[in-house]
Amino acid sequence: MKLSQRQEEIAKIVKKGQPVTSEAIAEKLGVTRAALRADLAILTMIGILDARPKVGYVYLGEAQNTRVLENISKVLAGEIMSKPVTVSEETTVYDAIVFLFLNDVGTLFIESDGFLVGAVSRKDFLKNAIGGTDIHKVPVGVIMTRMPNIICGNAEDSAYDLAKKIIEHEIDSIPIVEKIENSPKDKVLYKIIGKISKTNITKLFVKLGEGN
Amino acid sequence: MKLSQRQEEIAKIVKKGQPVTSEAIAEKLGVTRAALRADLAILTMIGILDARPKVGYVYLGEAQNTRVLENISKVLAGEIMSKPVTVSEETTVYDAIVFLFLNDVGTLFIESDGFLVGAVSRKDFLKNAIGGTDIHKVPVGVIMTRMPNIICGNAEDSAYDLAKKIIEHEIDSIPIVEKIENSPKDKVLYKIIGKISKTNITKLFVKLGEGN
Repeated sequence: MKLSQRQEEIAKIVKKGQPVTSEAIAEKLGVTRAALRADLAILTMIGILDARPKVGYVYLGEAQNTRVLENISKVLAGEIMSKPVTVSEETTVYDAIVFLFLNDVGTLFIESDGFLVGAVSRKDFLKNAIGGTDIHKVPVGVIMTRMPNIICGNAEDSAYDLAKKIIEHEIDSIPIVEKIENSPKDKVLYKIIGKISKTNITKLFVKLGEGN
Repeated sequence: MKLSQRQEEIAKIVKKGQPVTSEAIAEKLGVTRAALRADLAILTMIGILDARPKVGYVYLGEAQNTRVLENISKVLAGEIMSKPVTVSEETTVYDAIVFLFLNDVGTLFIESDGFLVGAVSRKDFLKNAIGGTDIHKVPVGVIMTRMPNIICGNAEDSAYDLAKKIIEHEIDSIPIVEKIENSPKDKVLYKIIGKISKTNITKLFVKLGEGN
């Protein structure tokens, strides 16, 4: 792992004037404190800086072995994915919401004949529940986000890459799919075998620090 | 970081019979494949094992410097928290939901006279929207989870500890608070200054691997 230019500058500033508050670093670099947060977090995690509450940052030394950071992207989605919760297109929106609560998940995936056709998030349900949709009559297939407009992943994708997609596309979860062998030529079909959500990534992050 | 007994056993099994699939490891240890997932992820991240898609796990060698894992818990909540979105108790549930969408957040925090009195998540809103609550008349103060029944954190808490609380208590986010100096003796009051959610933790995880 190579430090960015700004991270190098921050390390230099702290080395020279420690302890230094994040406000002071931000002022020196002419950026907002918010813009520095991620860089300070990285420098703390790789052991170059230490954050002392109410005192500021101190310099600890050159970067430690950052091999762990490099290995983060080796954890495969298939290793940490959860079971997906699915319903059929004909389910009413109301019944789908009840099913969402029973399973305590944030997103329902919609299947038809064994393949993934759509997804509905808690946010989509809330929008429809207050927006005048007759949730007792309208089937979930009408309000779902339809394939191929859903970002999918494979069990062999790295969990890290999917975490990145979740952040970039501002979504809650990604279905993990397998291509159906006999898909018609004009339309590739997928079977859903799992899902990766922010919860899976947060759990992985917690696991990372266990045993310390 | 010390490996758990099971992690040691897994490493031994892979060293001996590599490449080994996770199914084969699970069978040898007499546990389910799901139960092994987190351990395999850890062993991969600290560089003892490598996961080869469709082949299995191979043994790479002794644990690398695991200093990064130890430093994970040094990132403070105050460094990565987001701005909280707040409304007053008198806001109707409907207006609160609209505000939730406008700000694209998962939880609204409720303030009264400048201090935190409650929280309402997207899940709470959905439950009320389909449950017969007159969302155009009922104020959000009636349906909110009330202090002190909300898990709070401080800016000086480690982000790691808050991630752990999010997973243990199955919540979406934690408000970051400061004690109000002149709190009455019988009731400590808090000001909300930020929040940490699964999104913040996922972003931190993504940041961790950047630059590789």
